[in-house]
Amino acid sequence: MVAKSTNTAGLRGQVAGDTALCTVGQSGSGLTYCGYDIADLAEHASFEEVAFLLQYGELPTSQELSSYHEQLQAKRELPTAVCEILERIPKDAHPMDVMRTGCSALGTIEQEMSFDEQDDHIVNMLAKFPGIMAYWYHFHFNGQRIATTSDGQSIAEHWLALLTQKSPESLHIDTMHASLILYAEHEFNASTFAARVAASTLTDIYSAVTAAIGTLRGPLHGGANEAAMALISSFESPDDAEQKLMGMLERKDKIMGFGHAVYRTSDPRNVVIKQWSKKISEAVGDTRLYDISERCEKVMWREKELFPNADFYHASTYHHMGIPTDLFTPIFVMSRVSGWTAHIKEQRANNRIIRPSAGYVGAEPRAFVALDDR
Amino acid sequence: MVAKSTNTAGLRGQVAGDTALCTVGQSGSGLTYCGYDIADLAEHASFEEVAFLLQYGELPTSQELSSYHEQLQAKRELPTAVCEILERIPKDAHPMDVMRTGCSALGTIEQEMSFDEQDDHIVNMLAKFPGIMAYWYHFHFNGQRIATTSDGQSIAEHWLALLTQKSPESLHIDTMHASLILYAEHEFNASTFAARVAASTLTDIYSAVTAAIGTLRGPLHGGANEAAMALISSFESPDDAEQKLMGMLERKDKIMGFGHAVYRTSDPRNVVIKQWSKKISEAVGDTRLYDISERCEKVMWREKELFPNADFYHASTYHHMGIPTDLFTPIFVMSRVSGWTAHIKEQRANNRIIRPSAGYVGAEPRAFVALDDR
Repeated sequence: MVAKSTNTAGLRGQVAGDTALCTVGQSGSGLTYCGYDIADLAEHASFEEVAFLLQYGELPTSQELSSYHEQLQAKRELPTAVCEILERIPKDAHPMDVMRTGCSALGTIEQEMSFDEQDDHIVNMLAKFPGIMAYWYHFHFNGQRIATTSDGQSIAEHWLALLTQKSPESLHIDTMHASLILYAEHEFNASTFAARVAASTLTDIYSAVTAAIGTLRGPLHGGANEAAMALISSFESPDDAEQKLMGMLERKDKIMGFGHAVYRTSDPRNVVIKQWSKKISEAVGDTRLYDISERCEKVMWREKELFPNADFYHASTYHHMGIPTDLFTPIFVMSRVSGWTAHIKEQRANNRIIRPSAGYVGAEPRAFVALDDR
Repeated sequence: MVAKSTNTAGLRGQVAGDTALCTVGQSGSGLTYCGYDIADLAEHASFEEVAFLLQYGELPTSQELSSYHEQLQAKRELPTAVCEILERIPKDAHPMDVMRTGCSALGTIEQEMSFDEQDDHIVNMLAKFPGIMAYWYHFHFNGQRIATTSDGQSIAEHWLALLTQKSPESLHIDTMHASLILYAEHEFNASTFAARVAASTLTDIYSAVTAAIGTLRGPLHGGANEAAMALISSFESPDDAEQKLMGMLERKDKIMGFGHAVYRTSDPRNVVIKQWSKKISEAVGDTRLYDISERCEKVMWREKELFPNADFYHASTYHHMGIPTDLFTPIFVMSRVSGWTAHIKEQRANNRIIRPSAGYVGAEPRAFVALDDR
């Protein structure tokens, strides 16, 4: 047995399967979902239209969209047992651990008994994830057992209504739609790939989504928008940002929210979220964080040719919508569950268990030594 | 954009990374953990020695082993909140969903705040997983809130003590040690690979293990021992087994517990568990299931050159130990968590995020169509 080391770390650039859902960074196409450009979707569609597109492969007709809204609205209320479980997850838990446990618990109570039911369970998760986060949050931070239903027409409105416990402004609803669309799908990123690995054993859909949430939780994947918030809120002004960033670059500190594993010159989602950040900042009459963000963008490009990714302007955007920083990544979950579940359906439709090989770099064969002789 | 299809389904035979933990089916070596042959380990070692080996790379000295036992024993008791959560997971839940949710909940209460703590959390999961399963089981099936501590010296004895609520026989303890050793580790199988994908985003260890449990749950991965039980218990006698199996083969029915994705001529774990199945069957004075299993083995080899895998004789073994069939796969979790967590440590020690590419087989770029025009 010869020990061998491999240079296939992270499977980077290796094709691990097929998808009809998304292209990322292919020449001339930027980011597309089922053939539609992300900029068009974010400008013209609602999140529900995009979720429907990912789930069924085509944009919905008016009638299909109405029916989809009805299904989503009907499934919002959390089972009592899920609420009681959320009450027992401590206040200092990581909000992504709350999402992971909430999803897992939901799957024990509303089990997927057959793949024929998968579309209903996808709707169930899209409908209930905002309630899982909001119920836990209000119980522990405001001492309130909130209702997990609302009058919100859309997932965006429902989530903001549960979070703020009032009727959301239309600018906030529109911004949330765009944000959810931008985060919905991104090909074989790590969390989606984890969902597909899980799904390839023909496990249930809640197991596969729970795996994806646990994967998204990592600081190298989700969480960059929270890190970007920490960064920009550490600066007093654009000039202060420039001065401190230059120092960070000199010390080779890691600067979150810039660059991307796949995109080389720009992130097509940045243009969109940057516009919304500007609108929201102007609406609240406080453009300081936006101005700081723009200066960071300028300095990072000038010094390193690095561009802001989808996460960077999300920080100021969410902040000015009054969303606590810890809840940024759970919003990513509420959105990306649409992409994860579309990939799970795709994996199931043409499945082979995902079981790669490993290069062995360990000990040569050795004889067992009895405990007393060690 | 040219649609392309790939023939890399399931990454079969592709090296996705390195490991020093295990070789599977390499010429002359069968199955080894850190260089030690599985047959030697199953015959001479305790499960704790094997778990220590996987966790630290070397077999423990007597002193290290005593200390490891003490750490494991000290961490058995479940937090009250975890017990209360298990009470809210319904009686008809899938036991693997209970393990997945129990692990996820544990990770919200006893969080891994830094990778420096990883070894403590590995011990924590090894110590508490038997209690998670047994607490839920007794609460729902026997109306009892059991203590999650016991006098059991080892994990094998502790698990059997919690499950049966009495002092286990030494034959059962020895059998459980061998079984836990056989299931402990198996290179880049799907659940381990899911754990590594999750870990590659630098998420916490409970997230990565939760992902692995959800992946193991699938019928193409864990669960084969339960399917083997269903098979052998459907036969009245060896002759009946032969007759019905021939019918199943003729109808090309799927027969669980035979063959393997990696092994070609035999599964090195089968020899071991078959011996224990024989011992246990003779001890209970009922060799019918063992005899049926042997006849199945003979027929499958004669007709198809298929051999029993690790799962097949586990069915009769566990059954004669009085373990309910639904709990077979959760035992796999109690064991494999040793391998999963060793892989998570290894991934963290030399990490690159696991982010493969996809072949695109979807729609060509298309223009957005407004809702009213669809």
